[in-house]
Amino acid sequence: MELFRLDERLARDSQSILQLPLSDLRLSRDSRWPWLILVPRRNDVAEIFELSKDDQIQLLHEQVHVGSALKTATGATKINIAAIGNVVRQLHVHVVARFETDPNWPGPIWGHGVAEPYSDTALATMTTTILDALT
Amino acid sequence: MELFRLDERLARDSQSILQLPLSDLRLSRDSRWPWLILVPRRNDVAEIFELSKDDQIQLLHEQVHVGSALKTATGATKINIAAIGNVVRQLHVHVVARFETDPNWPGPIWGHGVAEPYSDTALATMTTTILDALT
Repeated sequence: MELFRLDERLARDSQSILQLPLSDLRLSRDSRWPWLILVPRRNDVAEIFELSKDDQIQLLHEQVHVGSALKTATGATKINIAAIGNVVRQLHVHVVARFETDPNWPGPIWGHGVAEPYSDTALATMTTTILDALT
Repeated sequence: MELFRLDERLARDSQSILQLPLSDLRLSRDSRWPWLILVPRRNDVAEIFELSKDDQIQLLHEQVHVGSALKTATGATKINIAAIGNVVRQLHVHVVARFETDPNWPGPIWGHGVAEPYSDTALATMTTTILDALT
């Protein structure tokens, strides 16, 4: 079986916090918004409609599970769920908690300003908060 | 049965081109990018995870069908699929054809610049192109 290859930019900009049945669940290192990324462990897939039907359904379940948990964990005003991939072509789905007080509300997060890293403590706290909500 | 109510801004900024089993398929009036919007005919739903499980699966099918057809119809470099809803809270899913030559590549389309309306002829042509690809 072919080894799963993770895009270098996804590896650099986020860190894995949980392995779901299909996807690597990753937390963005940008602290400006609670920002999760689902990366299906499938090589050479750029679009959701290029996944098998079973994988599409599984990715849907994971989006719903993660989106709902992120809303519960953060009390977000709105969850943004998006498969864009104009820069990083490997299929990945953003699941982002948005607040009326955040740095670009109600505009999109992608391409806005400069990432602000978490402190080690804040990163650990956010990871725990999300994992607790998921289980 | 309660009548479906369409958000006023969605009604103003896009026009219906097809009724799918769950969603009203709408074409944005902004000609800068081929931009479709799926609006599930369900009232008082803001998040995908607030839909019933059956509706979630149906919306997935419609995203895949429409996204794949839009790619075929336009030859897009990348299809962007997103449920954002920070401005219009009624659940709607954007399905957008992106090109390296478009006005904000590789940035997002949302909140970028000012919409450019189609001519009547161009709107009719785009509608026909998309409907042909869907059937």
